[in-house]
Amino acid sequence: MPAEKEPRAPKSEQTRALILETALRLFQERGYDKTTMRAIAKEAGVSVGNAYYYFAGKEHLIQGFYDRIGADHRSAVREVLDRETDLEARLAGVLLAWLDVAAPYHEFAAQFFKNAADPDSPLSPFSSESEHAREASIAIHREVLAGSRAKVPAELADALPELMWLAQMGLTMYWVFDRSPGGERSRRLAVRGARLTARGVSLARFRVLRPLVHEVHELFTDFLPGMARTVAARA
Amino acid sequence: MPAEKEPRAPKSEQTRALILETALRLFQERGYDKTTMRAIAKEAGVSVGNAYYYFAGKEHLIQGFYDRIGADHRSAVREVLDRETDLEARLAGVLLAWLDVAAPYHEFAAQFFKNAADPDSPLSPFSSESEHAREASIAIHREVLAGSRAKVPAELADALPELMWLAQMGLTMYWVFDRSPGGERSRRLAVRGARLTARGVSLARFRVLRPLVHEVHELFTDFLPGMARTVAARA
Repeated sequence: MPAEKEPRAPKSEQTRALILETALRLFQERGYDKTTMRAIAKEAGVSVGNAYYYFAGKEHLIQGFYDRIGADHRSAVREVLDRETDLEARLAGVLLAWLDVAAPYHEFAAQFFKNAADPDSPLSPFSSESEHAREASIAIHREVLAGSRAKVPAELADALPELMWLAQMGLTMYWVFDRSPGGERSRRLAVRGARLTARGVSLARFRVLRPLVHEVHELFTDFLPGMARTVAARA
Repeated sequence: MPAEKEPRAPKSEQTRALILETALRLFQERGYDKTTMRAIAKEAGVSVGNAYYYFAGKEHLIQGFYDRIGADHRSAVREVLDRETDLEARLAGVLLAWLDVAAPYHEFAAQFFKNAADPDSPLSPFSSESEHAREASIAIHREVLAGSRAKVPAELADALPELMWLAQMGLTMYWVFDRSPGGERSRRLAVRGARLTARGVSLARFRVLRPLVHEVHELFTDFLPGMARTVAARA
């Protein structure tokens, strides 16, 4: 896969970025379904062959977008994760940073939603195609837990970060439709969701609850196609 | 509201049903956005004024559809609710009956999804416009609990049926995208979800959990516009 070649020369990195920017702008202006690779290449001033060298198709551009926004998120959370040890504050910081990083793409997200909402689509955050971006995002939640003072039972160490990431996807869906100024409602939901999660995690000391957490986690990995494959590959 | 007049003469009931059938067929064939009231009236062989007499607009047709499918669901669950006293069996029966009743509208639901997914839209199951259909559906879940042998603490009696209904909406969203033959994956999810819910309810005997259930419920009613208004009106 040419797009995965490394290390990249700065020039080709620039071309790749240019194609991605151009695609996102056209998706926003014309809609994802109506934008062709040919149109993206033309608008970016590269040959069609060159565009396909960097991205094997439109889906790959979306994966490139997911990877990009994920990298931006990782940079944005660094400060709060290095500073805070309180689980609620760490998670709130991570979710608010996510909303900050996503903000410029709000309009695109609204029109793109119907493509990504289908869990069987390669564009879904739950698909196996999105695994790279998803795993990177789940790793942030693993760090949220690991660096906090909260005591997490070892048997929930795999399930909790994935459930927290699922909650982040729920927040994202809410945000897609949020028309409040500055996404203020989504920000309040992030803060409230962080508080609820922290309280839920502190209840994990009650052993009677652990099978239930496992069952919720199993349910969601079983029924989301990409997640099921990821879990199967891990086993 | 003429559509709410009662008792209806059989003739006008027939006309109303004919307009609703016609609208659903056209929505399915041409898409919801592209179908006009004028086209619906023409296809049903009634005057435009007559169509507007029964339904003040396209949104009202969708509310009529929600009411209809809700009434079908109420009939379909009668048998299982009269027979079963086990919470898991009652809930599984209600969710499977929901999938049965919804089955003929699978194609429509897939194309209609983007209209209903926006919680601020009058077409959303969470909107205040959908309150009538929503309350009827929540009442079924209230009966699921009330007629079961499960002990439900009085303080959760309001929250649990609304959370169970929310889970039904989650199942519906999964089903919209489910392409397995006969919606077999959705049916398995319904059965598994019923089991998980029954286990969760049985944990409600642990007092330490009740504030968490309340907080989850409060979070979801606060952030879904129609639900928030319904709860405010109740207080």
